[in-house]
Amino acid sequence: MSNKIGEKFQITSFGSSHGTAVGAIVDGCPANLELSVEDIQKELDKRKPGTSSVTTPRKESDEVKILSGIFEGKTDGTPITGVVFNKNQHSKDYSMFKDTPRPSHGDYGWMTKYGNYDYNGGGRGSGRVTIGHVIGGAVAKKLLETQNIEVISHVTQIGDIKAEQHPYDEIKNNIEMNPVRCADLEAAKEMEELIVAKKQEGDSVGGIVETIAINIPAGLGEPVFERLDGDLARILMNIGAVKGVEIGLGFDVANKSASEINDEYYIENNTVKTKTNNSGGIIGGMSNGMPIISRIAVKPTPSISKCQDSINLEKMENKKIEIKGRHDPCICPRVTVVAESSTAIILADHMIRSGFINPSNLNE
Amino acid sequence: MSNKIGEKFQITSFGSSHGTAVGAIVDGCPANLELSVEDIQKELDKRKPGTSSVTTPRKESDEVKILSGIFEGKTDGTPITGVVFNKNQHSKDYSMFKDTPRPSHGDYGWMTKYGNYDYNGGGRGSGRVTIGHVIGGAVAKKLLETQNIEVISHVTQIGDIKAEQHPYDEIKNNIEMNPVRCADLEAAKEMEELIVAKKQEGDSVGGIVETIAINIPAGLGEPVFERLDGDLARILMNIGAVKGVEIGLGFDVANKSASEINDEYYIENNTVKTKTNNSGGIIGGMSNGMPIISRIAVKPTPSISKCQDSINLEKMENKKIEIKGRHDPCICPRVTVVAESSTAIILADHMIRSGFINPSNLNE
Amino acid sequence: MSNKIGEKFQITSFGSSHGTAVGAIVDGCPANLELSVEDIQKELDKRKPGTSSVTTPRKESDEVKILSGIFEGKTDGTPITGVVFNKNQHSKDYSMFKDTPRPSHGDYGWMTKYGNYDYNGGGRGSGRVTIGHVIGGAVAKKLLETQNIEVISHVTQIGDIKAEQHPYDEIKNNIEMNPVRCADLEAAKEMEELIVAKKQEGDSVGGIVETIAINIPAGLGEPVFERLDGDLARILMNIGAVKGVEIGLGFDVANKSASEINDEYYIENNTVKTKTNNSGGIIGGMSNGMPIISRIAVKPTPSISKCQDSINLEKMENKKIEIKGRHDPCICPRVTVVAESSTAIILADHMIRSGFINPSNLNE
Amino acid sequence: MSNKIGEKFQITSFGSSHGTAVGAIVDGCPANLELSVEDIQKELDKRKPGTSSVTTPRKESDEVKILSGIFEGKTDGTPITGVVFNKNQHSKDYSMFKDTPRPSHGDYGWMTKYGNYDYNGGGRGSGRVTIGHVIGGAVAKKLLETQNIEVISHVTQIGDIKAEQHPYDEIKNNIEMNPVRCADLEAAKEMEELIVAKKQEGDSVGGIVETIAINIPAGLGEPVFERLDGDLARILMNIGAVKGVEIGLGFDVANKSASEINDEYYIENNTVKTKTNNSGGIIGGMSNGMPIISRIAVKPTPSISKCQDSINLEKMENKKIEIKGRHDPCICPRVTVVAESSTAIILADHMIRSGFINPSNLNE
Repeated sequence: MSNKIGEKFQITSFGSSHGTAVGAIVDGCPANLELSVEDIQKELDKRKPGTSSVTTPRKESDEVKILSGIFEGKTDGTPITGVVFNKNQHSKDYSMFKDTPRPSHGDYGWMTKYGNYDYNGGGRGSGRVTIGHVIGGAVAKKLLETQNIEVISHVTQIGDIKAEQHPYDEIKNNIEMNPVRCADLEAAKEMEELIVAKKQEGDSVGGIVETIAINIPAGLGEPVFERLDGDLARILMNIGAVKGVEIGLGFDVANKSASEINDEYYIENNTVKTKTNNSGGIIGGMSNGMPIISRIAVKPTPSISKCQDSINLEKMENKKIEIKGRHDPCICPRVTVVAESSTAIILADHMIRSGFINPSNLNE
Repeated sequence: MSNKIGEKFQITSFGSSHGTAVGAIVDGCPANLELSVEDIQKELDKRKPGTSSVTTPRKESDEVKILSGIFEGKTDGTPITGVVFNKNQHSKDYSMFKDTPRPSHGDYGWMTKYGNYDYNGGGRGSGRVTIGHVIGGAVAKKLLETQNIEVISHVTQIGDIKAEQHPYDEIKNNIEMNPVRCADLEAAKEMEELIVAKKQEGDSVGGIVETIAINIPAGLGEPVFERLDGDLARILMNIGAVKGVEIGLGFDVANKSASEINDEYYIENNTVKTKTNNSGGIIGGMSNGMPIISRIAVKPTPSISKCQDSINLEKMENKKIEIKGRHDPCICPRVTVVAESSTAIILADHMIRSGFINPSNLNE
Repeated sequence: MSNKIGEKFQITSFGSSHGTAVGAIVDGCPANLELSVEDIQKELDKRKPGTSSVTTPRKESDEVKILSGIFEGKTDGTPITGVVFNKNQHSKDYSMFKDTPRPSHGDYGWMTKYGNYDYNGGGRGSGRVTIGHVIGGAVAKKLLETQNIEVISHVTQIGDIKAEQHPYDEIKNNIEMNPVRCADLEAAKEMEELIVAKKQEGDSVGGIVETIAINIPAGLGEPVFERLDGDLARILMNIGAVKGVEIGLGFDVANKSASEINDEYYIENNTVKTKTNNSGGIIGGMSNGMPIISRIAVKPTPSISKCQDSINLEKMENKKIEIKGRHDPCICPRVTVVAESSTAIILADHMIRSGFINPSNLNE
Repeated sequence: MSNKIGEKFQITSFGSSHGTAVGAIVDGCPANLELSVEDIQKELDKRKPGTSSVTTPRKESDEVKILSGIFEGKTDGTPITGVVFNKNQHSKDYSMFKDTPRPSHGDYGWMTKYGNYDYNGGGRGSGRVTIGHVIGGAVAKKLLETQNIEVISHVTQIGDIKAEQHPYDEIKNNIEMNPVRCADLEAAKEMEELIVAKKQEGDSVGGIVETIAINIPAGLGEPVFERLDGDLARILMNIGAVKGVEIGLGFDVANKSASEINDEYYIENNTVKTKTNNSGGIIGGMSNGMPIISRIAVKPTPSISKCQDSINLEKMENKKIEIKGRHDPCICPRVTVVAESSTAIILADHMIRSGFINPSNLNE
């Protein structure tokens, strides 16, 4: 099993839901980036459950410790290791899941492929594992900030409720004002109601998360196989629960003509711009200097308390399953933090790979 | 610029539209696979333009030569090099594109990032470069055939015309019967008419291409960062003109509840199956043994003869552009071959990486 | 900075001498390998200083903790994280080394390349960092044991004292009986005396470490660029203090004729063998089934208390340096553990890469 | 089988002795490097056999063709493909080698690991395959020249004849004046006589090749696992016939004290220098600005006409073998070109990886 992502700016993630710890090594961050434990804790706090009506009521105090990589308040070029020790990890009996995979949950693969699966709390298949993504993303975001690059993710749809589009600054502001992390405050209320209703039914609901990155230089990504859109699509599709990724207009291009959606060029203040941004900031696999916009389809959390058909893999016979517990009725609000982190990791990686940031020393 | 994809089964692509040749090295194919030049030529012929009303009328005789890797009719474990020499490559004057990027075409990135761009016929940004993908895909498909795995791509939407769903065998049969490579023969006719109409307007239209892979063992892909869905999303998004990728239900998961779409398990003939396949054959990043189903959004070819606003990068001033020439009014039918090849490459790679195929010798 | 080695069986190392911790993630170890914290501690204890007259008198209690990757006494396919927390790391003043590189010590590169160097105790340039190698090597050795593969390193030369050659079983036995880890017990005594004499002079001395791996199947390694000899040479040369690597006869081939040293084949018990093993178990980049034998040249520890010429990098002026402290007068005995670990890591990696061990599950 | 080397500046090699062609793709060379087919041909001509008394009398006209990657006399950032088509490849009967491995020749591994081995002329195990290395090295050397970096390899020992050390400029001049490529012209004559004598005996002899690279900036390489010395050791050990690699003093460090060999620092013209260069330009895995000096042990060509013991793998029985043909009685003079190329590839790769050369465009 490979647990790394990125080429020059590289994350290696480890740990499982109910093991000793979860965390990540961030390797390849140049020296001389100001970085504190608070920079990472701040991002982890955003993904923490138990903070609102729309997430699981489970309380998890995810306190990160830095084991290496920072010297006198700055990175020193060596690997940055962030660890969150798990607490209360033996509080519950998960043995009913030992041989019985949950419908549409990843555990079937874990059980059959590896043959020794820590089924407690989902093990390494748990959403808790995204703590590693967020540690990596926090470092990436700090690194991108030195180049004025910002990355932000927000919820644009939950079930059949769609948010109106808002300008960047409003998105940034509004998502902090509601538990759904949606920029359209009216839609946010309806979304919240829908999620609470699903929770009461013992069901869950899906949605869409959009990510916007601004102040990107033209020329990130390579035009054939290490394209920026391909690398973004990969890391976003790698997030559990994601079943679709689109850039710019995405699937809407299917019923459009080129004359309707081509992004025409013009010069403004000696800078190249496009009149529209249907390409979502990437053409030919390379950034063109416009904001990079992606959207991901997030499926409803598969763990629901309704009775479902499953099997016992040990006995190879059919079996019913009811998954009790406090699961997220909608994972989208928490996925925003992971999408933001994932996007930041790829952008940081390509900023180094394309020569915009010195690979060893930020002061060079 | 990196021009390779795959880890164990690896393609390195080279060449440009109007240079001496285009092609690819396929490295990591195990020895003892029966392989002939015809196996590769057959796939290349499918992507060849000039064969119907719906593609560009440009004739390209893409005859492949094998420079290495086959001994006595079988692969010998060494790199397989396939080359197509370009013909008539100096037939036209492309100098108008030297400093003037085409709206929504990748050439802007090439011009600004590399600073020495072969603008003739799109250079390495040309669709002709997918010859390398198809060479790789042809070898991958032969390798997958030894495991009974089949991969097929077909058009499911052009503009606002959507095809009805058909069973696998009908798809396989019907796509050979119409130039659009659509399984719904009635829709195919309408699609063809729409494309011809767009051609006459000097415009182009987008669409959707679906890929189905069958007889996949459970356990391909790794559950965190080298997931099968992530790797498929990357290679598919890397195809020029693709702006979205989805697996299984894709973006339709957004307004669904888990109780509606969870794939429940059952045992049939001592084999694990799911009642539905909304997951598209992949959960938790790993194949689950059900057919793998992906869909890509293909934008309308950006090169159109309508007048558009662009710029002159040398003079940094605004400039109009009209792109004369014989461009594909809809690239979807030809993209099917590239999507099929790309999917086959990733599947072959993961079959080796996950230990289903010996990396050195097919007879082991 | 990249801190990983191996392709399928991959080590990512982290930490520095006087930071919070040192350790490594072992990624890619198949599930179902029996593994305990003692298996790792046992190897770490071998490299621990302060245990004899020939190492530094510094006491380091290197107690490893496992943060992830083991479930019910066996690996579960997920990353194995081993950590040793540093103790007493602020016991000494290293500020004299802040801007003054030690002759032939790596710190000059750290200072100039990264520009924010934790100079305390050598920082990440310290030999303490090889704890990560040994954690990785301990897991690798357990994995290799399941295939009956053994790896052993021993000292064959210190200064001008050369050990007589001994058979494998005697080497294995004898190295545990003397602090130099030399198989020739008489030479070992002389070596010990030489090292103690060098210590009293405030100087240090070099030597040679040989590594033998037995029960290797034929066919590890690939014949052009991912050769087994090349990969071994890399990981061994990557050990600090190593200035030369040889396989089999090594530099002695230079004044030999082919007729003297060619390894002739014969059949014994339906098995292919060679009469001699001048190739050291590897020809054409691939193992041939004979024992793999390598030798490394280890330079004298550069940190000595004699007065030396150096510079102040901040002021860019010449400056004398005397390096007080308790340094190893000869690093060879402790390097044996690192060479053993490094060799085991590469062999485990190639056993998986070449298909001899299933990448996911040892029971498959 | 993987056939690539390098990370950012990457060579993928292909082809076999008696197949259609041999060659390489050079991927990752930045755009705007002036490059002509003559630049590559010039290097290939140096490794060509049949040019003197000390090489095989086989004539090989190795004329390279460039299939891609150059536009208007300069690289354009796309992969550079160089091909040499083989001639007269069916001139001889090699069937006696089909099942009978030559002692100490790589063919045993090819036969057993891949099971479909092109035994004609050694197939891909032939020295002819180093044409790919030399194509890559030629591009690397041109790229390094833009940074004033020079790389040169020369013979320092053949059998028991050792050359006196010479200053860099004399080495550069003298090696062109004798077929052995040795800087000591008197020793060169004796070496030539020894080689001719070995040829007449139907035997062969080994030697040592030294490589010097000058004008290297400090800071190439990374200090733990992607060290410059490790990467050089790997690529040099990957050359067929090489059994040992050393940097700087190499194996002579074993019987030295630190006080004898530490490289003391001083400031000259505001530049950091070392009084001696026993480290061979690399400490702590990173270049220190002094010349990089490596030495490789080259074994005698294993293919000799004397009768040797071997086996028939098909019948699994013992068998004598006499290898008739025109083999190099000493491969060292031709290995110089391959060592030079290999060193240049790694240096070019690290110049890009460490941020000294822009990865996309030499003009940036």
